[in-house]
Amino acid sequence: MGRKIEVTELVLRDAHQSLLATRMAMEDMVPVCEDLDNAGYWSLECWGGATYDACIRYLNEDPWERLRTFKKLMPKTPLQMLLRGQNLLGYRHYEDDVVARFCDKSAENGMDVFRIFDALNDLRNLQTAIAAVKRTGKHAQGTICYTVSPVHTIDAFVEMAQQLKDMGCDSICIKDMAALLKPQPAYDLVKGIKEKCGEDTLVHVHCHATTGVTLVSYMKAIEAGCDIVDTSVSSLSLGSGHNPTEALVEMLEGTGYETGLDLDRIKPVSDHFAKVRTRYRHFMGEFTGVDTEIFKSQIPGGMISNMESQLKAQGAGDRLHEVLEEVPRVRADCGFPPLVTPSSQIVGTQAVFNVIMGKYQTLTSEFADLMLGYYGSTLGEKNPDVLALAEARQKKPVITGRPADLLTPEWEQLRSEATALDGCNGSDEDVLTFAMFPQVSTKFFKTRSEGPKSLAKDPVSQAPAAAAPTGKAEPSREAVTYVVTLHGKEHQVKVAPAA
Amino acid sequence: MGRKIEVTELVLRDAHQSLLATRMAMEDMVPVCEDLDNAGYWSLECWGGATYDACIRYLNEDPWERLRTFKKLMPKTPLQMLLRGQNLLGYRHYEDDVVARFCDKSAENGMDVFRIFDALNDLRNLQTAIAAVKRTGKHAQGTICYTVSPVHTIDAFVEMAQQLKDMGCDSICIKDMAALLKPQPAYDLVKGIKEKCGEDTLVHVHCHATTGVTLVSYMKAIEAGCDIVDTSVSSLSLGSGHNPTEALVEMLEGTGYETGLDLDRIKPVSDHFAKVRTRYRHFMGEFTGVDTEIFKSQIPGGMISNMESQLKAQGAGDRLHEVLEEVPRVRADCGFPPLVTPSSQIVGTQAVFNVIMGKYQTLTSEFADLMLGYYGSTLGEKNPDVLALAEARQKKPVITGRPADLLTPEWEQLRSEATALDGCNGSDEDVLTFAMFPQVSTKFFKTRSEGPKSLAKDPVSQAPAAAAPTGKAEPSREAVTYVVTLHGKEHQVKVAPAA
Repeated sequence: MGRKIEVTELVLRDAHQSLLATRMAMEDMVPVCEDLDNAGYWSLECWGGATYDACIRYLNEDPWERLRTFKKLMPKTPLQMLLRGQNLLGYRHYEDDVVARFCDKSAENGMDVFRIFDALNDLRNLQTAIAAVKRTGKHAQGTICYTVSPVHTIDAFVEMAQQLKDMGCDSICIKDMAALLKPQPAYDLVKGIKEKCGEDTLVHVHCHATTGVTLVSYMKAIEAGCDIVDTSVSSLSLGSGHNPTEALVEMLEGTGYETGLDLDRIKPVSDHFAKVRTRYRHFMGEFTGVDTEIFKSQIPGGMISNMESQLKAQGAGDRLHEVLEEVPRVRADCGFPPLVTPSSQIVGTQAVFNVIMGKYQTLTSEFADLMLGYYGSTLGEKNPDVLALAEARQKKPVITGRPADLLTPEWEQLRSEATALDGCNGSDEDVLTFAMFPQVSTKFFKTRSEGPKSLAKDPVSQAPAAAAPTGKAEPSREAVTYVVTLHGKEHQVKVAPAA
Repeated sequence: MGRKIEVTELVLRDAHQSLLATRMAMEDMVPVCEDLDNAGYWSLECWGGATYDACIRYLNEDPWERLRTFKKLMPKTPLQMLLRGQNLLGYRHYEDDVVARFCDKSAENGMDVFRIFDALNDLRNLQTAIAAVKRTGKHAQGTICYTVSPVHTIDAFVEMAQQLKDMGCDSICIKDMAALLKPQPAYDLVKGIKEKCGEDTLVHVHCHATTGVTLVSYMKAIEAGCDIVDTSVSSLSLGSGHNPTEALVEMLEGTGYETGLDLDRIKPVSDHFAKVRTRYRHFMGEFTGVDTEIFKSQIPGGMISNMESQLKAQGAGDRLHEVLEEVPRVRADCGFPPLVTPSSQIVGTQAVFNVIMGKYQTLTSEFADLMLGYYGSTLGEKNPDVLALAEARQKKPVITGRPADLLTPEWEQLRSEATALDGCNGSDEDVLTFAMFPQVSTKFFKTRSEGPKSLAKDPVSQAPAAAAPTGKAEPSREAVTYVVTLHGKEHQVKVAPAA
């Protein structure tokens, strides 16, 4: 037997987040849990990221209940989540005590592996979560967001990995959300980390498939010593999703590396999601192929469509080309942050403003805060002229410390606000839901007792709706009236499906 | 500069053959020819395979005119074709003089690189075509169909490569039509050929993308010394097609290998076919993802759907599973031919017969001929019991010689039959068209003067028919004419939405 390459299966979280707008209901995942738990994965990613938000916003599902159900159905294989460091699963920084409580509760409800990252790669934004996870005895995975810029050298990334190891991380993840990691840098990066941090340092590589090259990057990463890679079953893979699990298994045949995964267990999972996928077709993006333009622009597809709609709203839909050229300049001015939520939105919106209103004539509040360090530090130096503009706009100083150090304890306040809400059950889990999504949770607590709502559609009712770009459900039973011309004579004809 | 990896672009032939049922009209290729000719490709595959058949059968296009137009529009880059050895582009063996005349005329009309293969890998079926191409001074590429079986060892393939070299081939192609070539065998095979046939032997690898692993196979093949690989621009790639050209270029960055391709020339080509593709959507298969089941069954997707319809026609639609298990046994009995046209159909149909009527109770004439050597020799030994059945059925002997040696000169007969046809222009090109497609050409010669017919549809008229998720929100305002059969009588019916 060759060296074992471990695999994390993404189909329960990132795959449907990337391909089906995170809308998959728990009922569509339950049937495959037993097979997944017995297929031989290193871990099963199934929680965190946007799933928590989607649960309460769209599916009337309690995300904690989802986690407990996963744990019950998949007791053998470690469960894995994605955690945005000090942001938890929300969109602001939380005070340390809230972060620690979230990690405690997640572990208590069944989470085993915490993949912790920060959009700016400011590792100080990871330290509280890492320490909290370590205290629970669970696996803390320190994450580096991969990006390409003049300052993001292999050495710089390797240095981050060493810092994460020093912070107590059990493993290091290279997170390539935009599919920018090419084979040679994948090799160099993994090799570099292994040399610097020790051969026994677990290195886990997470790539999306968008640019079409990253299965090759997995091959080279594995040759360099990579221990674990992320894939998704083939029926819910590729496009802006991930490389197919089955292809990874087959690719390694005869190479001296093997996954040990049981393809007979994975086949029914893939068959299941092939059917499920069609029922969520209305949430699928247009894009299912390969997009290599990202290498040139460094701008993920989702960000481009975002900027396009902003431009159109300003009557400047024809100026996208200028904005695409402006984005790299704005990114350079604010110190080359990786372009991932929220930095991608902040940089993109500022680029739109620059094109429409003149260069830095108007700074968004978020961009100014980013310049001033309120999201954390960036690897690159900031443009001092733009920094001066940001200071003038925000009337607050540059900070160089850890942003969360500015926060004061907030748990008791959150608890009293949450428990006052109609339908809140008073648990710490509910308080955490409220803390991360105050508006949405207020509504969710009220409707929770009605139980989960699926947004999937059966294929029959979906077929006519598919013609509508919004995916709104046209009732399938409705008759349509056509004008039919037969032998030059017009007839009104009502067409309806047979009962 | 690193070692140069040459690239053959497939978008003008195999890409639309694999993804759009070979239906693309010349008018949709003309606009990109200039960019393709200037992008730096080693060759542009644009003719042969099923395109000749599709031209006269569906598009009312003269394939020779298509070739001349390509040559005029792309004078710099060598044009490449796929040639089925002694079958030319038809479905039977032709006598040597016909084969030689076809090669002469193809060269004369602009063809530069002839990729010559035989479905059984019987290299004697290649020798006439190779010699004929060599006499024209053009590039003769000897081809090995890649397949997996107990007898298809790396050594066996390397031996074939040496024989092709000895036959005078200018380069060796490994043709992986079913995407079965995994990274490690790709490495071993290229390495083996280079070691046995000499480092200066040009090795060209052609893989489909169906199983999702073959871009990795390209990487390993390149590391082993592969000189040329086949790709298609990203907008017409993947699924049962090929790996994307742009992904190959990007994948090699920093590896010490580079294609030298000009991505700024390729972008407009890909943008063009992204639009063209939607107009041929009605010819696209459902399948756009990755299918790794082929590794297990060795049965290409097209062959499965073929067998499915045969079973249904026999009222045995529920017995596919048995047939899938029978195919490998039938394949073993007839000496492990690669499963590619026509051997895939012959083996598949016999497997269906075995399941429905009992094992070898009925032999198809084609299967019996295959057993008896009338298609050529196979690498594996044949099952003597089945061979005896085949002899009894066909009442003719086993042959071990080159099948075409049994043929007598046929050119003059073909010429006199062809020139008697209405609309035949008396050229050798027309005689060759008649030789390969006697029925279809008879009809084509009559309608040729009407000029090419496109089968593409503009998106508006297509939307209601396709019910595709990309369709317009508004129902098409355009009237569509249907033929409606009412009480056994046909009516032309014009249908438009009510105002």
